[in-house]
Amino acid sequence: MARTGRRPGNEDTRGEILDAARSAFAAFGYDRATIRGIAADAGVDPALIHHYFGSKKELFVSVVEFPVDPELVLQEVLSEGIENAGRKIARIFLTAWDAPATREPLLAVVRAAVTTDQGATLLREFITVMVLPLMDKLDGPYTKLRLQAAAGQMVGVAILRYVIQFEELKAASIDELVDLLGPRIQGYLTGE
Amino acid sequence: MARTGRRPGNEDTRGEILDAARSAFAAFGYDRATIRGIAADAGVDPALIHHYFGSKKELFVSVVEFPVDPELVLQEVLSEGIENAGRKIARIFLTAWDAPATREPLLAVVRAAVTTDQGATLLREFITVMVLPLMDKLDGPYTKLRLQAAAGQMVGVAILRYVIQFEELKAASIDELVDLLGPRIQGYLTGE
Repeated sequence: MARTGRRPGNEDTRGEILDAARSAFAAFGYDRATIRGIAADAGVDPALIHHYFGSKKELFVSVVEFPVDPELVLQEVLSEGIENAGRKIARIFLTAWDAPATREPLLAVVRAAVTTDQGATLLREFITVMVLPLMDKLDGPYTKLRLQAAAGQMVGVAILRYVIQFEELKAASIDELVDLLGPRIQGYLTGE
Repeated sequence: MARTGRRPGNEDTRGEILDAARSAFAAFGYDRATIRGIAADAGVDPALIHHYFGSKKELFVSVVEFPVDPELVLQEVLSEGIENAGRKIARIFLTAWDAPATREPLLAVVRAAVTTDQGATLLREFITVMVLPLMDKLDGPYTKLRLQAAAGQMVGVAILRYVIQFEELKAASIDELVDLLGPRIQGYLTGE
C-alpha cells in the first residue's frame, strides 16, 4: 500500500526510500523491482528517487552498501590479461578485506547475509546482477558454477582469516596468500 | 567470583554449567580453561560436571554443539587412502550440509561465529583443538595454512550454496561438486 501525504524532501525521505528499496529488491529481486513501486511504497515521486540516488542500479548499490565498485575491480583484474587474473583477483580481494575502511562494510554485508533472509537475497542479487555479468568480458572455459566455487574460495578464506581468525591464516602476508590462492582462482577461470 | 549455595542437580544446573563453560572456553581458550574454574563459576562441584558431561573435551563438544564428530569423519576420510581424501572430504562435508538435521546446527555455529566474538573464538578453538591435530595422522606436504585454505574453500562454498543460495551452486548435485572441489582439496593436502 502506498503511503501518501508525506512531503518530499524532508530529512527522513532518503532513509524511507532506502527502506522501501531494500524491501522491494529483497522481495521481488532486482529485475522485477521498479522505481515506480518503490516510490509508491515510500510515498514520494519517482523523480525524487532519481534525484537522490540516480539510476535503479545506483539505488541498488546504495541499498547493499557494498564498499567496492565491481566494474572498477574488473578493469584492474583484466589490466594484465586473463592469464594473470587469478592472482589479481586474490590480491584485490584480500587488500579490500585488509583495509578497515572497506573491511567493516564488507563484514556488515556478510553478517546480514548469514543472519537474515533479506540480507542473503540482497547479496545474491547484487553478485548476480552486478558481478557475474561482468565476467562475460572474460574469455575462458569457466561456467557460473566455477565462478561461484572460486568466489566460495575467497569468501571462505576471508571469513576464516578476518572473522574466525585462525592463527596461521591471520598471520600470513597478502603476498603469501596470493601465491597460494591465485593459481587456484586461475584454475577456475582458465585451467582444468 | 564463585557463586555458591545452589543445590547441585537442580534442573537449571546443566544449563548453568554450559554457560560457565562457554564463557571460560571463549575467554581463556580450551587449554587454559579448567573444569575446576568452570565448576566454581557455576557454583557446583567439579565431579558434577564430569557426571553430566564426561571429560573436558566432551564438555567442550557440548558447548560448541558441533553436529559432526571430527574423529569419526577422519576415519572415513582416510578409509580409501590419502590419495582419495580430497574427494572424501568434499563429499562428507557437503552431505552434512545437505541434511537438515546437521545443516541447522552447522548454520547456528557459523552464524554465531560471524556475528559474535565469543562464537568466533569458540569455533576457532574447536577447529584448532579438535580438527587440526587429527590431520597429523595424514602424511603429506600440507601445512596448517594449506589446511585452513582448504577449509576456507569448503566453508565458502557451503555459505554460497546453502545460505546465499546462488542459483547454479544451489542446483548442482553433490557428485558434481565433489568432481569440482575434490581435486582442489586434494591439491592442498598432497599436490603442489
